[in-house]
Amino acid sequence: MVVLRSYVSGSWRAPEDEGAPLRDAVTGEEVARISSAGIDLGAALEHGRAVGGPVLRELTFHQRAALLKALGSHLREHREELYALSARTGATLGDSKFDVDGGIGVLLAYASKGKRELPNDTVLVEGAVEPLGRGGTFVGQHLCTPSHGVAVQINAFNFPVWGPLEKLAPAFLSGMPSLIKPASQTAYLTARLVELIVESGLLPEGSVQLVCGDPRDLLDHLTEQDIVAFTGSASTARLLRTHPAIVGNAVRFNAEADSLNCSVLGPDAAPGTPEFDLYVKQLVAEMTVKAGQKCTAIRRALVPAPLIDAVTEAVQERLARVTVGNPADPDVRMGALATLDQREEVRRSLKALTDAGRIVFGDPEHVEVKGADAERGAFMSPVLLRADDTGRAEPHEVEAFGPVSTLMPYTDAAEAIALAARGRGSLAGSVVTADAEFARDVVLGLAPWHGRLLVLNSEDAKESTGHGSPLPALVHGGPGRAGGGEEMGGVRGVVHHMRRTAVQAGPAMLTALTGRWVPGTDRTVTDEHPFRKHLEDLRVGDTAVGGPRVVTLDDIGHFAEFTGDTFYAHTDEEAARKNPLFGGRVAHGYLVVSFAAGLFVEPAPGPVLANYGLENLRFLTPVKPGDELTVTLTAKQISPREGADYGEVRWDTDVTNQDGASVAKYDVLTLVAKRPAQD
Amino acid sequence: MVVLRSYVSGSWRAPEDEGAPLRDAVTGEEVARISSAGIDLGAALEHGRAVGGPVLRELTFHQRAALLKALGSHLREHREELYALSARTGATLGDSKFDVDGGIGVLLAYASKGKRELPNDTVLVEGAVEPLGRGGTFVGQHLCTPSHGVAVQINAFNFPVWGPLEKLAPAFLSGMPSLIKPASQTAYLTARLVELIVESGLLPEGSVQLVCGDPRDLLDHLTEQDIVAFTGSASTARLLRTHPAIVGNAVRFNAEADSLNCSVLGPDAAPGTPEFDLYVKQLVAEMTVKAGQKCTAIRRALVPAPLIDAVTEAVQERLARVTVGNPADPDVRMGALATLDQREEVRRSLKALTDAGRIVFGDPEHVEVKGADAERGAFMSPVLLRADDTGRAEPHEVEAFGPVSTLMPYTDAAEAIALAARGRGSLAGSVVTADAEFARDVVLGLAPWHGRLLVLNSEDAKESTGHGSPLPALVHGGPGRAGGGEEMGGVRGVVHHMRRTAVQAGPAMLTALTGRWVPGTDRTVTDEHPFRKHLEDLRVGDTAVGGPRVVTLDDIGHFAEFTGDTFYAHTDEEAARKNPLFGGRVAHGYLVVSFAAGLFVEPAPGPVLANYGLENLRFLTPVKPGDELTVTLTAKQISPREGADYGEVRWDTDVTNQDGASVAKYDVLTLVAKRPAQD
Repeated sequence: MVVLRSYVSGSWRAPEDEGAPLRDAVTGEEVARISSAGIDLGAALEHGRAVGGPVLRELTFHQRAALLKALGSHLREHREELYALSARTGATLGDSKFDVDGGIGVLLAYASKGKRELPNDTVLVEGAVEPLGRGGTFVGQHLCTPSHGVAVQINAFNFPVWGPLEKLAPAFLSGMPSLIKPASQTAYLTARLVELIVESGLLPEGSVQLVCGDPRDLLDHLTEQDIVAFTGSASTARLLRTHPAIVGNAVRFNAEADSLNCSVLGPDAAPGTPEFDLYVKQLVAEMTVKAGQKCTAIRRALVPAPLIDAVTEAVQERLARVTVGNPADPDVRMGALATLDQREEVRRSLKALTDAGRIVFGDPEHVEVKGADAERGAFMSPVLLRADDTGRAEPHEVEAFGPVSTLMPYTDAAEAIALAARGRGSLAGSVVTADAEFARDVVLGLAPWHGRLLVLNSEDAKESTGHGSPLPALVHGGPGRAGGGEEMGGVRGVVHHMRRTAVQAGPAMLTALTGRWVPGTDRTVTDEHPFRKHLEDLRVGDTAVGGPRVVTLDDIGHFAEFTGDTFYAHTDEEAARKNPLFGGRVAHGYLVVSFAAGLFVEPAPGPVLANYGLENLRFLTPVKPGDELTVTLTAKQISPREGADYGEVRWDTDVTNQDGASVAKYDVLTLVAKRPAQD
Repeated sequence: MVVLRSYVSGSWRAPEDEGAPLRDAVTGEEVARISSAGIDLGAALEHGRAVGGPVLRELTFHQRAALLKALGSHLREHREELYALSARTGATLGDSKFDVDGGIGVLLAYASKGKRELPNDTVLVEGAVEPLGRGGTFVGQHLCTPSHGVAVQINAFNFPVWGPLEKLAPAFLSGMPSLIKPASQTAYLTARLVELIVESGLLPEGSVQLVCGDPRDLLDHLTEQDIVAFTGSASTARLLRTHPAIVGNAVRFNAEADSLNCSVLGPDAAPGTPEFDLYVKQLVAEMTVKAGQKCTAIRRALVPAPLIDAVTEAVQERLARVTVGNPADPDVRMGALATLDQREEVRRSLKALTDAGRIVFGDPEHVEVKGADAERGAFMSPVLLRADDTGRAEPHEVEAFGPVSTLMPYTDAAEAIALAARGRGSLAGSVVTADAEFARDVVLGLAPWHGRLLVLNSEDAKESTGHGSPLPALVHGGPGRAGGGEEMGGVRGVVHHMRRTAVQAGPAMLTALTGRWVPGTDRTVTDEHPFRKHLEDLRVGDTAVGGPRVVTLDDIGHFAEFTGDTFYAHTDEEAARKNPLFGGRVAHGYLVVSFAAGLFVEPAPGPVLANYGLENLRFLTPVKPGDELTVTLTAKQISPREGADYGEVRWDTDVTNQDGASVAKYDVLTLVAKRPAQD
């Protein structure tokens, strides 16, 4: 029998003992054995810090993004193999795709976000330059730099592929190496995943490590630069959170724990409405996908009291059509739980739940199984409960981590919100309604207790990914019982792995530190117009000054006529005088920026390919007839594109009048060519 | 003798016992007595949740900001009284201003940030609308809503005014009530501060409470909606972090602990340079301000080995001029430590430090004191150490929380960074240098271990607030030893008090939830042009459509001539054909937006007062001669100004061509009048 190896300190290591058996959820056969005996976990962390971290930190966000994209493509080519192993965890093909394709999707989404939303740089400059003194000689800026530690990722058994990948993607993009510790039950699938990653040779050595088996003394070796991301039960989260090394070093600890998520049906969604059907269908999907072993699954179905009988019947009817059995059988809609122990655990929780409600579908002890041995596999029927006495504690506190949900009635939005809050913090909630007012009340009422809320109705049903699906662009996590953490959420999840540092300096020094021109820094006016410089030759601070040009009353009148913008402030002296802001005829803002372009442009073909946009344009002082405009254009940020023959250049643009007052400020965005290859 | 009262559950409560004495740091006289015996702390938390929270959450960010501003003004009128009480803590007038004026400054800074950077709304919409499906019918957006609990603020003794106010300001602005627990030693000053707040009647009842004395069972009553912000020692932080209610409910816990902050002198800063003098002056200030009782004070002074003798001498000389004594004496530069116990604690730490270095200034056991009794007051000499053996652990681990610093030599930037990192996480660091390259190396090297870094030199010296001053716009906190937290940081500190929830919905539903028009939502084209509607009559989604208008070759040629923007892409067909983006002559982007304005403008005077800016302008498709432009302008966000007769309206603007393709997209920003009073 194969014993799972760990990938640590640059090589695959077998444990020193024979390990404990991991069993096929469907057949009970041994799949692999697992142990971490003899693996030097402190050395693994140090390898990540000393070997993986430094190499990763040398790469820019765009380079890391490109590697994530390549890795996603590589894994996609090996999907079938992962599906096959996944089936042994009890997963149907649909479940496996949810896990495998979902995980690859996170890699690709982060690759795309990294390229679009992060700079082609190793440091992330965050937020605005903060003026710290009136004279402009003292300013602040926040920089995010990668932590110099390892992201220790402790995953749950239910998503052996998505779980590690959704943690790896933001960590890697931030420049931080990962150490993956899968849950034992399904570790053989994660181990194969990491083999595929290592075999690909795409990621720098030390940026991904794997520890199969007991984490032993792993956490004892944590330092203040490491971080821990945990997914699993609320009770394990509590235990890890108080680990002396985590507490003593203030290690950033992120927990994502399963919670008693609710789904609220709106009072408008009577039988016959699309929302009624969406609600029932979603509830059954949440109960049966992954055999209900999802941290985000609906555990509490809150239904208007007048509709609860109808919902009960409709759900019963739909559940009755769910075939349980061997995932290899095409008729099977729901596979096995991950292990026999897990099934016992669910049955125990059901005992507590049945104190407070009655079972209206399913028998926890018996299920008809297709294509497999019901005794050897961890099969179980979906179980629907109904708790008409919502005052009981159990439905809000006891989670059966399997195909189990409880229906509960409510009278109005306030009661639905109060019941939801009794879960003391959830990962996800949903509201199924077409009534915008009800949705607004419930969403704002539930928000403080939820990391994610889905409003489902016929508007979004076709594209909705459903109540239970975390998405890379959105935060995943929730307060209280759900662990109090946040994962993913686009760039937020990347920044979570970085240290935010407020830097204070003079503007010229800040320019030198960030590579971005900060107002107040000297401008470099050179003989050669900066628009004539290729990307590599351009420096932040390079400046063109154009003008002056007088704006005449004729110019204003002509522009009004030519463009059709005959707003009274430009055309009617008497009316303009009454305007509280202008006090007389003024030039169009669009005329000002057009004239400014005329003053800074270089007509002949050159490296500047296009002005593709403007940002943060503000008109600051009205321009009166006779005013004289000067424009000062300064290269503020130069962003070469990876693998392209051009890059973006952002120009600080300041249009001033004859008194030196700024009349308009904005950023001009241009595409600038790199030097041709023959240069 | 006065016994400090607590302000809880809407009234001032005296403790049930006579309490413990608090002594004047200068004279040893009893100032007040303190106890929390008999105060119902669970009820206080519940009062904050049930009374303070709901009222605060009804206010918009702008309304809360206005209250903070009024509170700042009110407290400013009572500064003298606070200074007088502050002197009893051992503080000089300068120290008191640092504490009192600093605290008021945080209120005013948050008032200003709240008005400028947060919406006039109760919900904070964060980040972009995230497309979640290709069809545009499923989108996501992050909302931040106030937590429904109490912000429990456990403060340190050294800043009895600034400490509570820097925590109150972001909490209040977020919509969360505060419960202030001052450190006992100086609680009489915080108690007077809260009396002033309560007497002002400015803040809603329940939004600020005060508990003087032992926190007893306070933390036992925490729920998942409460948060805790702690400032104090690293050891207390560790203790609180593992409190069962904090761990069990995943209570957001922010710690800001004193740390072994370093200040690095650059190799360029030889004697005679302005930077040498700045370094010495700052080090002495950090040792003596507040008698060195600052979490951010410089504990480790890292100096290039060739310069260490010169620095030692210069610091000795300057320290020799520091008069220690009664803060009431105008000659006194450094007052007393907060208590005799605190002085004993510093002397104990000094014993450990002298194992690794030698004292080069000051006698820990003796000091000449002006205008006070050296025995009764907690006076102490500044003590400078020098540790030439940087390999010793003590200077990097043992903090003497008083007027104590250790000089250490380093050889190069890499060693300076490595030494700094041995502090295992600091609140603040500084680099004093005029060498931008050295500064960049050290700042990026130190960043992962620091919450804030100051680069000091002659460029920013005049306006610099110095190494030890946290500022409201910048994050305050640091990794590891410094507690791992973040306070302030402008709006970041507000968001820290809120729950971030990802909301998924169709665009129309999201528009209804956020009050902001989301692309994909139906537009409302009405007979009346939306520019003719006053602010109150306008609805998000109100739309004007203008055009079509053909752009002719003549238009392009004329615009080029008129504006002077004769870029070849607009004027030279042959050259334009070689441009990789255009493939022929195209209209100026500025011409497109100018024509668009001509198509959507309403010429006659009306509620729209001005177009004050543009944002996020992108030119998406080149406009060729003969193309026909249509513009669609939709009210996206309507922001009434508090106490003004107008507000801001942001218009989604989409310029399309005859094929329906967008050629430019941007937001037009306008000021729109409210209805005149007589309407």
